[in-house]
Amino acid sequence: MLSKATLKLIKSLEHKKYRKESGLFVAEGGKTVNDLIDCGIKAEAVFATEKWIETHKLSGGIKAETVTEEELKRASFLCAPQGVVALFRQPSYSIDMNAPKERLCLALDNVQDPGNIGTIIRIADWFGIEELYCSTGCADAYSPKTVQATMGALGRVKVFYVDLPAFLGEAKKSAPVYGTFLDGGSIYGKSLCNNGIIIMGNEGNGISDSCAQHVNERLFIPNYPAGRSTSESLNVSTATAIICSEFRRRIS
Amino acid sequence: MLSKATLKLIKSLEHKKYRKESGLFVAEGGKTVNDLIDCGIKAEAVFATEKWIETHKLSGGIKAETVTEEELKRASFLCAPQGVVALFRQPSYSIDMNAPKERLCLALDNVQDPGNIGTIIRIADWFGIEELYCSTGCADAYSPKTVQATMGALGRVKVFYVDLPAFLGEAKKSAPVYGTFLDGGSIYGKSLCNNGIIIMGNEGNGISDSCAQHVNERLFIPNYPAGRSTSESLNVSTATAIICSEFRRRIS
Repeated sequence: MLSKATLKLIKSLEHKKYRKESGLFVAEGGKTVNDLIDCGIKAEAVFATEKWIETHKLSGGIKAETVTEEELKRASFLCAPQGVVALFRQPSYSIDMNAPKERLCLALDNVQDPGNIGTIIRIADWFGIEELYCSTGCADAYSPKTVQATMGALGRVKVFYVDLPAFLGEAKKSAPVYGTFLDGGSIYGKSLCNNGIIIMGNEGNGISDSCAQHVNERLFIPNYPAGRSTSESLNVSTATAIICSEFRRRIS
Repeated sequence: MLSKATLKLIKSLEHKKYRKESGLFVAEGGKTVNDLIDCGIKAEAVFATEKWIETHKLSGGIKAETVTEEELKRASFLCAPQGVVALFRQPSYSIDMNAPKERLCLALDNVQDPGNIGTIIRIADWFGIEELYCSTGCADAYSPKTVQATMGALGRVKVFYVDLPAFLGEAKKSAPVYGTFLDGGSIYGKSLCNNGIIIMGNEGNGISDSCAQHVNERLFIPNYPAGRSTSESLNVSTATAIICSEFRRRIS
């Protein structure tokens, strides 16, 4: 059964303030929960319905506590609960300043939409990008909406919240820094490295001046055909997907 | 002012049934509304606050009816209303069976999420794809959520709801039909044409057998590095973006 105190704790984790205080976050659904466990994210508690437990297995020999359908529904943040809700401890990673020199990394400058952050984590995971540097103004990667949008990829991508301009200022000493701008050069024709940092900007305003000053390659995804009247821009997660694909294509 | 009957009509357009009966849809925000007008989509009525009217102009010399902030808020489907709500007539296009032979087109097989449909329309617009063939099981392109996600691109991309397997069976006689499959060949290494149809599949199940039988090029977006444990797949709109970019890159 699910105690009142536990239910209250779970529901409080919708808010960043309580996630920060407790260091916890919520994940739901067998695939997402097991992916996180498999990646070494610590499950503090897992709650599942009897029906779910009968037909599923948790990774790492972890046992779920049985709750009723009604209790699970109350604990869940989803419209269609998936039988299992877990409390995880937010991992804390230490920053490796050599990472951008050695491999391709992503940075987000004030990306606001939790769904975009989740989708971008999933894209990073697909393209083997294991470091995501978020400016402190970005949406929180551990909100329920973001966690679900990552589809389990959150365990395989390290998310850091950093003073992004300061971090980029340091990183650019030893690694290329790429940014996307509406006046940048076509990504199809640019030479791209297999290391460095790609910065993606805010949904409405793009990359801020304080980050842009550290960019040494300005990229653009050309619309087609050139000169046709079209949307002002692509959504930030759409653009991230195209850019990551283009970097990886060159070396695959 | 906004009459009770008009408000009721607007709110009814959240539901596909009433959109179908009336042939209308709702769009909000100056950019989206003007983009649709500029593309020749017929505005039946436009409602805006005095403040909005003072600082904005509608395309085509159209005059907005003044409503109060409170009325606009009631009419709006957005959490943060943008000062203007418009009623548009759904355009009806006739299918040009030569389109896939002459240019690149997109097809969606049972894509369920209204946000995905909207994002895909915006991607199609960016890459100059003007025909989108949706299976009858796809979410409706004229739902308020989809219209807003297209950011005005809906006026520049023709959306058709068709019996997709039958349509593909006919189209493949004169044009290549591409589909994305987890067991497809790397898109980076495939030869891609500047015409034909690209099919994108359902969020959970991919492309159905009845559509897959018409595919003559099976594509896959390789994850990186090959063999690394990663997410099972990319989101359908993410995958659409990468594939459209790759087709357009070859000819740009």
